[in-house]
Amino acid sequence: MAEFSVRFLPDDKTVTIREGETLLQAAAEANIPLKASCGGNGTCGRCRMIVREGEVKQLQTGKLTAEQQAAGYVLACQSIPQCTVVVEVPAESRLSEHRVLLAEDRSSRADLPSTLDPLFQKVKLTVPPATLDDSRDDAGRTLAALKQATGIDNARFSLEALNALPGALRRNGWQVTLSLADVKGYIEITGVEPGFREDNYYGLAVDIGTTTVVVQLVDLTDGRTVCVRGTYNKQAVYGDDVISRIVYAVDNKDGRQEMQKAVVDTINELIDQMLPENNIAPADVRAVACAGNTTMTHLFLGIDPEYIRLEPYTPAANSLPPVPAGELGLHINPRALVHCLPGVASYVGGDIMSGARLIEIDRAEELTLFIDVGTNGEMVLGNREWLLACACSAGPAFEGGGITNGMRAMAGAIEHVEIDPANGEVTYNTVGDAKPLGICGSGLIDLISALREAGIIDRTGQFLPRPDLTRWREGDDGPEYVLARAAESGNGKDIVITEADVKNLIRSKGAIFAGIRTMLRMVDLPVEAIDRILIAGGFGRYIGIQDAISIGLFPDVPLEKYKYIGNSSVKGAKMALLSRRVRDEVEALAAKVTYLELSVGNEFMDEFVSALFLPHTDINLFPSLIHAA
Amino acid sequence: MAEFSVRFLPDDKTVTIREGETLLQAAAEANIPLKASCGGNGTCGRCRMIVREGEVKQLQTGKLTAEQQAAGYVLACQSIPQCTVVVEVPAESRLSEHRVLLAEDRSSRADLPSTLDPLFQKVKLTVPPATLDDSRDDAGRTLAALKQATGIDNARFSLEALNALPGALRRNGWQVTLSLADVKGYIEITGVEPGFREDNYYGLAVDIGTTTVVVQLVDLTDGRTVCVRGTYNKQAVYGDDVISRIVYAVDNKDGRQEMQKAVVDTINELIDQMLPENNIAPADVRAVACAGNTTMTHLFLGIDPEYIRLEPYTPAANSLPPVPAGELGLHINPRALVHCLPGVASYVGGDIMSGARLIEIDRAEELTLFIDVGTNGEMVLGNREWLLACACSAGPAFEGGGITNGMRAMAGAIEHVEIDPANGEVTYNTVGDAKPLGICGSGLIDLISALREAGIIDRTGQFLPRPDLTRWREGDDGPEYVLARAAESGNGKDIVITEADVKNLIRSKGAIFAGIRTMLRMVDLPVEAIDRILIAGGFGRYIGIQDAISIGLFPDVPLEKYKYIGNSSVKGAKMALLSRRVRDEVEALAAKVTYLELSVGNEFMDEFVSALFLPHTDINLFPSLIHAA
Repeated sequence: MAEFSVRFLPDDKTVTIREGETLLQAAAEANIPLKASCGGNGTCGRCRMIVREGEVKQLQTGKLTAEQQAAGYVLACQSIPQCTVVVEVPAESRLSEHRVLLAEDRSSRADLPSTLDPLFQKVKLTVPPATLDDSRDDAGRTLAALKQATGIDNARFSLEALNALPGALRRNGWQVTLSLADVKGYIEITGVEPGFREDNYYGLAVDIGTTTVVVQLVDLTDGRTVCVRGTYNKQAVYGDDVISRIVYAVDNKDGRQEMQKAVVDTINELIDQMLPENNIAPADVRAVACAGNTTMTHLFLGIDPEYIRLEPYTPAANSLPPVPAGELGLHINPRALVHCLPGVASYVGGDIMSGARLIEIDRAEELTLFIDVGTNGEMVLGNREWLLACACSAGPAFEGGGITNGMRAMAGAIEHVEIDPANGEVTYNTVGDAKPLGICGSGLIDLISALREAGIIDRTGQFLPRPDLTRWREGDDGPEYVLARAAESGNGKDIVITEADVKNLIRSKGAIFAGIRTMLRMVDLPVEAIDRILIAGGFGRYIGIQDAISIGLFPDVPLEKYKYIGNSSVKGAKMALLSRRVRDEVEALAAKVTYLELSVGNEFMDEFVSALFLPHTDINLFPSLIHAA
Repeated sequence: MAEFSVRFLPDDKTVTIREGETLLQAAAEANIPLKASCGGNGTCGRCRMIVREGEVKQLQTGKLTAEQQAAGYVLACQSIPQCTVVVEVPAESRLSEHRVLLAEDRSSRADLPSTLDPLFQKVKLTVPPATLDDSRDDAGRTLAALKQATGIDNARFSLEALNALPGALRRNGWQVTLSLADVKGYIEITGVEPGFREDNYYGLAVDIGTTTVVVQLVDLTDGRTVCVRGTYNKQAVYGDDVISRIVYAVDNKDGRQEMQKAVVDTINELIDQMLPENNIAPADVRAVACAGNTTMTHLFLGIDPEYIRLEPYTPAANSLPPVPAGELGLHINPRALVHCLPGVASYVGGDIMSGARLIEIDRAEELTLFIDVGTNGEMVLGNREWLLACACSAGPAFEGGGITNGMRAMAGAIEHVEIDPANGEVTYNTVGDAKPLGICGSGLIDLISALREAGIIDRTGQFLPRPDLTRWREGDDGPEYVLARAAESGNGKDIVITEADVKNLIRSKGAIFAGIRTMLRMVDLPVEAIDRILIAGGFGRYIGIQDAISIGLFPDVPLEKYKYIGNSSVKGAKMALLSRRVRDEVEALAAKVTYLELSVGNEFMDEFVSALFLPHTDINLFPSLIHAA
């Protein structure tokens, strides 16, 4: 079979591919993260490239305009090199500047459990010597000493450790160092070394997001985060969202293995950077706690995800067995166990439970609302008495999906917008102060709020006729507002928001608000009963809460009740990594949650329809806006 | 390296060995079990062969007489062939006719637990389908259905089973067959098959004795014993008793592996016979329950046995983790778990606990004494309230060890003896009615009793001067009694018992009786308090209880209190194989036993000295003998 080389510009990376492979596969090989929302089906039109040299066979041209095609644009997923080629990857096709939310507050102790009882631990133990008067077996006396020293009463020896025990006990005056691994249900003594060992050992706290993966390297002896890294989930080439990932995994031969390999490769890439930099041997990384949504967790462990996406949306498992790292192919000690935190349902996963445990929602006196807004709005409402969770299909609008010039919070994304009501003129900020390429979630919230305040759209999101404003115009699909003109943008194109975009965003915000209201109705409580609202996730960081309230995305409660808590998924995973007790508590929490399937019954749909206004059909739900108005 | 062939007569088996290997190794290769009590050190002189053709280099001649050497006798363990050789293996050097105690009462249900909850089990399950109203995960709904159907509430899915679950549930209308393996502490669901499966699956109950290994092949679906086989423990070439096995394992490079391989090979030999005969595939053998003494169990699992033989006699572990059969190299399903029953101390092992559970000593109202007499007299005394166990080094006398013409209960062994007090003439039976080759344990007990009754020995075991009897004579080492003359014996030699032999036997019987008395003293009870005495093991079967009482080996209680229970070790193992509950109860029983180390304190030694009489210094302990006298 023939092989061709593909050279990517401006990166100047060259890879070799086999005949029949696409430019998208070549880009994955070259480690160039691309937008490919549709999973390589040729429908989203985002993986555009320009062929500079050589020839490709195009299966489809999809959304490419005639001008683009004339200019050499092709869709990477639909283009098969016929010879050695050189292609250019334009900025807007790349995922590369996305801001990955690592762990803030590295110096804070907020993510340390109260006691350090990590999933892997070495314990130094002085064992009473065997005598004729104390004829217990070596294992029995060691377990008794362990219990006395640590309180651990559910330890069991592995055969290998048992084998090493008699010699180790007697080599150093009955002092040994035991290696303890939590295997869920009991503690396995996996090793015995003579004498007291002072070596360090480490663990990984991992957040597997659909888009990004964050890994914290943690010193298990003191709980310190040694290093933290994030990068794109390499599964992105198979599609933007969990549904396209599931479809790929299920419909393709070896799809599940490819998907598993992609995420394992992603984590390994981070491991392979972090360990050498910190002079840590892979063998010394002894445990992993991992939080991800239900699909990510299934794909990571290689479990059949098919029924997650089919009604009635059933995951194979919420609670998951620990799996040896070697079986998954992680570049750490192959016997380190990987613990995935449990989920509650197909769309309320271990990432949410991780966050819920971090904020100790199950111990809170206050009625707490925990929201992680992404493609789905995942929410937990409750306190020490009860817990409800739901997921509303907000759609990808807040992540830029389905919006004409929407994008994720990468360099060039418009993240804050103000419109002068007097003249309809705009001022904005972009991520990284780059020339604007599109609008990200926080910018879109600002924008809707500002368009409404400036009288450019009405309460239903419909554009009002404002030919008086220079930025108002009739586009191909109806009226639109121009934020940035081609001359000032980073890609030579106008950046606009259309009526369809606004409606799309209103549906997204309406879904989230309706989810909140549906949960409150279940327990017959008003919005004001909520004592605190904790917002998690990368998107949450940049949201203007007041703007989010003013468009009716978030409930109208005093701003001081809101708190942004960052990447609660990885923080909670770190807590679980450092504490068997916490890991068990996450299981208990997940088991305690009542999951609300919003597609059952009419409550959600009624609430959703009522929420398709700015801020809401029932303005009394937003009293502060009445006063402001 | 040169190779030579060795042909064995009269078997006419030929094997090829490498230069430098011994005839003992060749015999092991040819699967000819030999006596080698000393473990191949050239000291016991039992592995004699006659070189018929070719030449061997003799390292030592050991106990061989000049006549024997002249006749071509060599010690197999000390003879290295220098070329192709032909050797003859005389009957007395062979282990081959030993009676292996299999499972009697195959039709009885005495070895079936009250409920069938085997260590591996398939369960047919109808799972409620997933609906929008019942949004539990597949694993959760399956576990709930399993609990409802079987009461099992501690099951966990393996990753592999989880992976298969969603598809299997939906392929056959939510009917599945689960494979459940007890992993101690919880049940692992190791497999899921769609629909209801009717296939059979099997387990092995194994008794690993120092001398013989017995394997029962059991149908786990109904508890039926399909087949039972026994053979020599191939470790015998490394020595007769556990001490020489430990020494070999510890002192030789790879000694532990060799020892493990020997016993695994022994079990595999039986498996390789039984499975094809019964048309059972190795993959369908899914669990093993194994009972053995502490040394045997350590060697089987490859655990360091060194400290078992060194004061204070500490085993690495009494309770043992289940180990996959594949790790041990057994010829069954590699993922079948091998459960070794727990012991109590270095010399009270899982075989004794297996028997103790079989007789339900821990539930008995009656004060029960359970005795397994072999090289060690292992005993458990107690009832539902308390349990004591001890082991007294009876020495190998009852197995024929250290006795001039002692032998195991093989063909040709004198097993019953009567002496006419009038003329001192003897009548005897032999095993298999063969020409006599020696005297086995039951014969020795008869003989001591008879010698005493005939006034040939006194109460201390000393020979009285009886030149009036034709069978009394002065031998090289003092007076002796001739049971069989060379002309009538199977090996052309006189079969005698010497004063040293009698003293040796008195020490053995004294040790056992002293052990019983020491336990009784611990709880301040007289011999008469014992309600029943259960005798186990191969040796026990042929003992004349009345004779054993009359020499002071067993307590003087009515004969109806005695019961012989056969190979309680393998029977108990079968019970544990068929019932997780029983397996757990054996663990609980072992944990409940108070072990009495007889070498601590003076009680045992005092009792032992008092017991060095026939029947005892305190004749009041044997009231029935006073009346008889």
